[in-house]
Amino acid sequence: MSVGLEIPGDLLPIKGIRLSVTSANIYAEKRDDLTLLEISEGSVVSAVFTKNLFCAAPVKVAKKNLKDSPSRYCLINTGNANAGTGEQGNINARDTCQALADLTGSKGTEVLPFSTGIIGEDLPVKKINKALPYLVKNLADDSWLSAAKAIMTTDTIPKAVSSQAGIGGVTVSITGIAKGAGMIRPDMATMLAFIATDANISKDLLDKILLRAAGKSFNRITIDGDTSTNDACILISTGKAKNNLIDNCNNDSFIDFENAVTDVCCKLAQAIVRDGEGATKFISIAVNGGKEAEECLAIAYKIAESPLVKTAFTASDANWGRILAAVGNSGIHDLDVNKVNIYIDDVCIVEKGERCKTYTEAKGNKVMNQDEISLSVNLNRGSVTEEIWTTDLSHEYITINAEYRT
Amino acid sequence: MSVGLEIPGDLLPIKGIRLSVTSANIYAEKRDDLTLLEISEGSVVSAVFTKNLFCAAPVKVAKKNLKDSPSRYCLINTGNANAGTGEQGNINARDTCQALADLTGSKGTEVLPFSTGIIGEDLPVKKINKALPYLVKNLADDSWLSAAKAIMTTDTIPKAVSSQAGIGGVTVSITGIAKGAGMIRPDMATMLAFIATDANISKDLLDKILLRAAGKSFNRITIDGDTSTNDACILISTGKAKNNLIDNCNNDSFIDFENAVTDVCCKLAQAIVRDGEGATKFISIAVNGGKEAEECLAIAYKIAESPLVKTAFTASDANWGRILAAVGNSGIHDLDVNKVNIYIDDVCIVEKGERCKTYTEAKGNKVMNQDEISLSVNLNRGSVTEEIWTTDLSHEYITINAEYRT
Repeated sequence: MSVGLEIPGDLLPIKGIRLSVTSANIYAEKRDDLTLLEISEGSVVSAVFTKNLFCAAPVKVAKKNLKDSPSRYCLINTGNANAGTGEQGNINARDTCQALADLTGSKGTEVLPFSTGIIGEDLPVKKINKALPYLVKNLADDSWLSAAKAIMTTDTIPKAVSSQAGIGGVTVSITGIAKGAGMIRPDMATMLAFIATDANISKDLLDKILLRAAGKSFNRITIDGDTSTNDACILISTGKAKNNLIDNCNNDSFIDFENAVTDVCCKLAQAIVRDGEGATKFISIAVNGGKEAEECLAIAYKIAESPLVKTAFTASDANWGRILAAVGNSGIHDLDVNKVNIYIDDVCIVEKGERCKTYTEAKGNKVMNQDEISLSVNLNRGSVTEEIWTTDLSHEYITINAEYRT
Repeated sequence: MSVGLEIPGDLLPIKGIRLSVTSANIYAEKRDDLTLLEISEGSVVSAVFTKNLFCAAPVKVAKKNLKDSPSRYCLINTGNANAGTGEQGNINARDTCQALADLTGSKGTEVLPFSTGIIGEDLPVKKINKALPYLVKNLADDSWLSAAKAIMTTDTIPKAVSSQAGIGGVTVSITGIAKGAGMIRPDMATMLAFIATDANISKDLLDKILLRAAGKSFNRITIDGDTSTNDACILISTGKAKNNLIDNCNNDSFIDFENAVTDVCCKLAQAIVRDGEGATKFISIAVNGGKEAEECLAIAYKIAESPLVKTAFTASDANWGRILAAVGNSGIHDLDVNKVNIYIDDVCIVEKGERCKTYTEAKGNKVMNQDEISLSVNLNRGSVTEEIWTTDLSHEYITINAEYRT
C-alpha cells in the first residue's frame, strides 16, 4: 500500500553515470537484489550517513573509502544489512569492493559499499562476487528505474525523481533514487538514497548542499521513530554538463541548483513516507509560531510518533484530544498551552488550548477521511516554523513487522 | 487480554477509609462509572500528578484543593476526562465537589475530583450530582474491589493490591487500586491510583515515600509512550493503626513501611502493564553497567517504545538486530557499542556489540515464546542499573485505539 505514489516515469540519464542490476540470489525468491552504479572519473561525491552508534559495516567502510580515494562505484545489495556483524562484516564489505576493483582495474577504496536488509547475518560475499561480472558488462545510462526497484526491501513501489535547473545558460540534470519503508527516522542523515547530477560544482559546495538538503528532506520524516543502522545518502556530480564551475554560494547559480537538489530530496523523502509500512495516510505536520526550530521539531515528532495519534489517523477519527496530549507531553516546559491553536487542513480544532467554538465533528471527519492531511499547530510565541512528514499506524504495519525481519 | 493477572482477592479494608460505586450513566451502556472514597478526619494525604502541560481540569482543581484544605473525599468518574475543556472544565469539576460537600456537610475544597475517559467533552455534571446521594448512603469499608472495577476504562481486569508491615509491634495495612491500559507513560507522576494505609505517619514522610515509590513503580512503565493528561496517584494514611508516629526517615519503621508501599506501587504499576492495550507479553527491561540512571533509562525506554522491537515481541521473534538498533539510537553519544552485551532471560544474544558466538535461534525462540520475558542490556561502563516494564505491540492495540476514544 502507498499513498499518492505512481511508478516513476521519464527519469533523466545523467552524463557520466551508468547503472546495472541483477539477482545475486540473496533473497530466497528470485528478484534483483544487487545494483552497481558507475561514476565517471573526475566526479565529486558527497555523502551523509546514519548516526546510529551501531552503524553497519558498509557504512564504516564507505566512510573510510570516501576519505582515501575518489569514488568510482557504488555497490548496493538488499536482503542483508551487514550490520551487527563485527570485524567479519568489515572484512566482507571490503572483499566485495576488492572483487569489483579487480574486475574493473580500479582500487578497492574507489568502491563504496551499501547494504540493507536483515541485521546480524553474514554478508553472502561469494554470491555477490559471482554476480559482479554481469553487472560490469551491463552498465547503461538508462537503468535508473531498474536500480530504484533493485534497492527495495519492504517498499511496495520504486522511488525516483528527476529535475533540471538552468545554470548560466546551461541546463543541468538531477536524478535520484531512494528506498525505505520501515525503521525510518533518519537522524542527521538519510535512508539509502543515491542522487546524481551532471552539474559542475566544487566539492565544498556539493557537501554543503547535501547537508542542507538532507536536513530539509530526509531528516524531516518519520515512520516509526526507529533510526536504521544503514542509512546513507550519496550526492554525485559528474560535471559533464560543462556549466561554469559553481564555486560561490552567494550567486544565483548556486541558489537555483541547491533549490533543485532540495526539491529532488524532498520528493524522494516524501515518497518514502507515502510508501511507509502499512501507510494509509500521508500526513504533513507543521508547527508554527515557535521560538526556535528545536521546540517546533520536538512537538512535531511527538505528535508524529504518538501511537495514539497515529491510530486515530488510521481510523479517520478527528481525535484532537490525543494531539493535544502529545503537544503537552513534548518536553517544552515553558509552553503556554492557552495560546495553542491546532488545525487540520483549514479546519480549526483547538483554539487557545481548548476545543474551537466553531469546530464540529462533521468538519473534522471530512478532513480526516482524506488520504492526505495537513496538521498544523500554532504555538503563538515566536516566528519559527518547521514541517515534517509521517504516516498513520495500521494493522498492516503490525503484520509486516511481525513477519519480516529487518 | 492481560498477561499473568487474576481478579484480585482478599483486599484488606483500611480503618478510616470507606468506598462506594454506582452508575451515573456516563457510558452509553450501564456500568459503574462513579466512585466515592471517604477519608476519615485527621488523615494525611499525599499526591503526585501528570506533568503533561495540557493537564485536565480535575488535576488543576485537585492540586488547589489539596493546598487549601485537608482532604475528606475523592470523587472519581470514568468515561469523561474533563480535559481540554477550558475554564468551563474547572467550573464543572468544582461544581461536583461542591454538590458532594453540600450533601456531607463538608467544604468543596475538601473534595478531590478525578476524571478519566474521553478528552474534550464537557463533564456531565448533572448526571454525576444526581448519583451522589446514593454514593454517600452506601459507603462501606469492604468496597475496594468494586472501586477497582468502577475506575476501569479500556482495562480488561481490575487492579488492586494489599500488603501489611509491622511497625514497632503494630501491624499496619496498605491497600491500593489503579487503572490504566493505554496512553501510558507516566512522567514524574502516575496513572489513576489510590492507595490507603492506616499507618500513623507525618505528612512530610508520606510525601517523601509517595514521590520515591512512584519513581520506582509508576514512573518505570510505558505502554505506548503517550503521557496522559489526567494521571494522578494519591496516598492516604488515616493513622488509625495507632502505631507510634513515623517521623524519622532513618529508622527501621520508616524503611519497612516505605518498602511495603513501594511494593504495592510496583505491583499496581506492573498490573497496568500486564493489562496494557493489546498486551500479549509482559517484558522487563533492565539496563545494567551504566554510568548514570539517565542513560540507563534512555536506552530502556528507547527499546521499550520502538515499534519494531515491540512487534518482534508480538511475533515471538528473537530479532536482536532491532534491539541493537534501538540501543544505538538512544542518544548516548559516547557509548562504546563494542562493550554492549544483551540477554533475554539467561540467553546471551549480543556479546561485545555483535551476535553472541553461543547464540542459536532455537535458544532465542524458546525464550521469546514465553508470556513473560526479561531483557537485559549491559553497557559495561559503570555500576548503575535501571529497570522498566512494558508490553508488545499487537493488532489488538490498533483495533482498540482505532475504535475507542481517549
